[in-house]
Amino acid sequence: MSFTIKQAVSPTATGYEILDLYIEGEEIQAIAPELPPRGTVIDGSRHLLLPGFVNAHTHSPEVWQRGAIAPYPLELWLTELYAIASLTPDHIYLSAIATAVETLLSGGTTVVDHLILLPGQELETIAAAVRGYQAVGIRAFIGPLIYDQHPDAGIPKGDTDWQPGEGDLNTGQILEILETAVQRFHRPEAGISIMVAPTGMQLCSDPLFRGCVDLSDRHNLCRHTHLLETKAQQQLAQEKYGCSAVAHLEKLGFLSPRTSLAHCVWLDDADIEILAATGSTVVHNPLSNLRLGSGIAPVLKYAAAGVNVSFGCDGSASNDGQDLLEAIKIGMMLHNITDADYRHWLTPRMAVEMAALGGARGLNLGDKYAIADRLGTLHIGQQADLVLYDLQTLSLLPKTDPLGLLVMGRPTNAVAHSWVRGEQIMAGGKPTRLELAQLCADLDRHSLGAIQRPSPDLMAVEAHYRQVMGLPI
Amino acid sequence: MSFTIKQAVSPTATGYEILDLYIEGEEIQAIAPELPPRGTVIDGSRHLLLPGFVNAHTHSPEVWQRGAIAPYPLELWLTELYAIASLTPDHIYLSAIATAVETLLSGGTTVVDHLILLPGQELETIAAAVRGYQAVGIRAFIGPLIYDQHPDAGIPKGDTDWQPGEGDLNTGQILEILETAVQRFHRPEAGISIMVAPTGMQLCSDPLFRGCVDLSDRHNLCRHTHLLETKAQQQLAQEKYGCSAVAHLEKLGFLSPRTSLAHCVWLDDADIEILAATGSTVVHNPLSNLRLGSGIAPVLKYAAAGVNVSFGCDGSASNDGQDLLEAIKIGMMLHNITDADYRHWLTPRMAVEMAALGGARGLNLGDKYAIADRLGTLHIGQQADLVLYDLQTLSLLPKTDPLGLLVMGRPTNAVAHSWVRGEQIMAGGKPTRLELAQLCADLDRHSLGAIQRPSPDLMAVEAHYRQVMGLPI
Repeated sequence: MSFTIKQAVSPTATGYEILDLYIEGEEIQAIAPELPPRGTVIDGSRHLLLPGFVNAHTHSPEVWQRGAIAPYPLELWLTELYAIASLTPDHIYLSAIATAVETLLSGGTTVVDHLILLPGQELETIAAAVRGYQAVGIRAFIGPLIYDQHPDAGIPKGDTDWQPGEGDLNTGQILEILETAVQRFHRPEAGISIMVAPTGMQLCSDPLFRGCVDLSDRHNLCRHTHLLETKAQQQLAQEKYGCSAVAHLEKLGFLSPRTSLAHCVWLDDADIEILAATGSTVVHNPLSNLRLGSGIAPVLKYAAAGVNVSFGCDGSASNDGQDLLEAIKIGMMLHNITDADYRHWLTPRMAVEMAALGGARGLNLGDKYAIADRLGTLHIGQQADLVLYDLQTLSLLPKTDPLGLLVMGRPTNAVAHSWVRGEQIMAGGKPTRLELAQLCADLDRHSLGAIQRPSPDLMAVEAHYRQVMGLPI
Repeated sequence: MSFTIKQAVSPTATGYEILDLYIEGEEIQAIAPELPPRGTVIDGSRHLLLPGFVNAHTHSPEVWQRGAIAPYPLELWLTELYAIASLTPDHIYLSAIATAVETLLSGGTTVVDHLILLPGQELETIAAAVRGYQAVGIRAFIGPLIYDQHPDAGIPKGDTDWQPGEGDLNTGQILEILETAVQRFHRPEAGISIMVAPTGMQLCSDPLFRGCVDLSDRHNLCRHTHLLETKAQQQLAQEKYGCSAVAHLEKLGFLSPRTSLAHCVWLDDADIEILAATGSTVVHNPLSNLRLGSGIAPVLKYAAAGVNVSFGCDGSASNDGQDLLEAIKIGMMLHNITDADYRHWLTPRMAVEMAALGGARGLNLGDKYAIADRLGTLHIGQQADLVLYDLQTLSLLPKTDPLGLLVMGRPTNAVAHSWVRGEQIMAGGKPTRLELAQLCADLDRHSLGAIQRPSPDLMAVEAHYRQVMGLPI
């Protein structure tokens, strides 16, 4: 298929220009003030043309519990998250679709799914998510969420002399599943990539991290993990390693230009230097960090230190939506209250670059570290992952600064058309490969039903959590 | 007109019930598990029924600059806001409509417009806004934004020995305009109320505040003002009064159960006690406070002290949308990072109550202080200002906790039907009294066009601002 987008509004360094863009196969093949119409012609006038954004951290199965968990800090919220009736691969398939569609509807063309695995059905879970993303046509990076220590180990003990209990699967079993997943599902050229994605230092052993590094090196896989989301984790790292979690991950060789790190709320200046030196990417999830009371990631410091930053929605049970524009808006603005000097604040243009190019770099697909294909900017020869926003929709009117309004406003029904790998997967504000009404009916029918809240698990964990975090009992 | 809403999902103290509700004239006349269908029958099944929310602080004319002003702190942002070509009453009419429609689309049924007045056309401005709100049918409180000191006076001087310069109109002229506005436009029984709304202590003399108190007493008007939005204003109050702005406003008699105070970011514990003792309402505008880097209002402290709190979007140039659900979401979550003890955090149910009943109380229309009609809860005899949310829309699926998902999710196209004063002003997701497409075309046609940024005014003010705020020059 080929497309000619006519007369779209496209940002320059400081203003806007009107241009035509020609897509053939998977690539942008021409950009010029005026091109001859070839293939399907798309009227881009009064539309803003941007590279697609990356939803750089989410957990698709959480869709089934969105809205359901009360405001708790991460460590207690997790006990609620896991206290549910089992999901099935059908659920996984549908929640991947829902995650993909909401990401698309808010300007995303790539999703990074740190995929919670169904116990005993690990490969089936991955297969179902892959099918879901293929059903929508979005570009997906799937990082099966793995850990080899008992979930209890994620809360500090208030003691450095303890051993984490074992998880259900041992390190070798987990790495074997991952190796199989890579063989079966890792098809970057077809838009589906597998990542190594240990959940985080709070539940993973050193051998698991090392095994992931090895797999990543052998198969050229991106690396992804949670990092220092909460103060409790900062405390836990000191108990576990006697040093910061960042220094420990560096020692294990996990940090690299193809490593993206979700949250990074509780890092100090020395940690930030390590991220910069290793070329690691921070995935900022501002809404989840507020919802769980985790804190404000020092994003202005990351920007000043030259650390690459991208945006994520995080899973739908800690946000509780997958609207990337909302994450970008809050991720741009939240930091204004952390620095009185407005000259350091992020701008809408910077935020858009972080969401697109920052996201691509975090997946080793941006210009700087590109190995395979290229994403994140509009240039000839790049992969055609791009989005046209309708500037005549109510939420993007009146005519002022399109990027300012897209980022700082509250866009609704703003995406008109999207392409991923040259295929038009949104047209006229709707996904092209599926019916929204059918998706809604399927989500409705598969809803989990009543869940006991708070769960007995939460009540069991709460007293210990309050004690170790210094909260009144 | 009368309506019977059948089988809607309605929150109880801790869960939900299914009920029928009968509206006749302007009032809710019956609520029961099952009512005979009378008048127009509305299928409320799979819809969440809530009292309408109050958008408790905005400035409708800012619609014309939304997205256009770069991230600056309030004092510099204001110089950009005023550095524009003049608006006309036609603009005021359209931006009131746009503000009303976006408020309606996000669950609001009442808007508080702290209305920026066109110089020399003050009464025409108010008339245009009144026409705008009547064109939509929303309940409106219009507080003409007045001040009698020169705008330069709004930035601290770094000196307590100075006199603010005069504004364009003197105190007497302003109060006269206001008195005329009350006579011409104050029709609370028809859904349009005038408020006394001096912009804030930063630009208003004591005689102006006293004149407003007098007008408010004589005509039974609500009082509204900005209060301690920025650190600069806290500093300015010390220069101007030698005490906190709150203590000074109390001395002037401005604080009362019919007073609502926008922002309240920089209050200390003694100030909070004064708000509680006077029955004043805080209007929390979390998005604007982030966008302008003003800080985090101590809302958990307000809640603990028993101060009534409601939510506002603030003007569209400091947010830059009028989505009330977005303000409620961030206003609920933002405070989690200010208090490590999650037992103090707001819940979705609390946030919904603040947005509805809190908003009504701030306008002297809630149960506690009710003088005239009643709003903010669903009870027999109350004004029928209510909203049905479609629980089968993508953003409110799957079926989990409807209030949790409405507040913590990212609702899109969620409002199906709304009533104000018993009239259905939203039906099937659309305003009933006007065409959205026509509004979009009108906004498009009236756009202001290119504006020089940064403005010469900003550059003139910036050096002084940086010096007095202790920022490097």
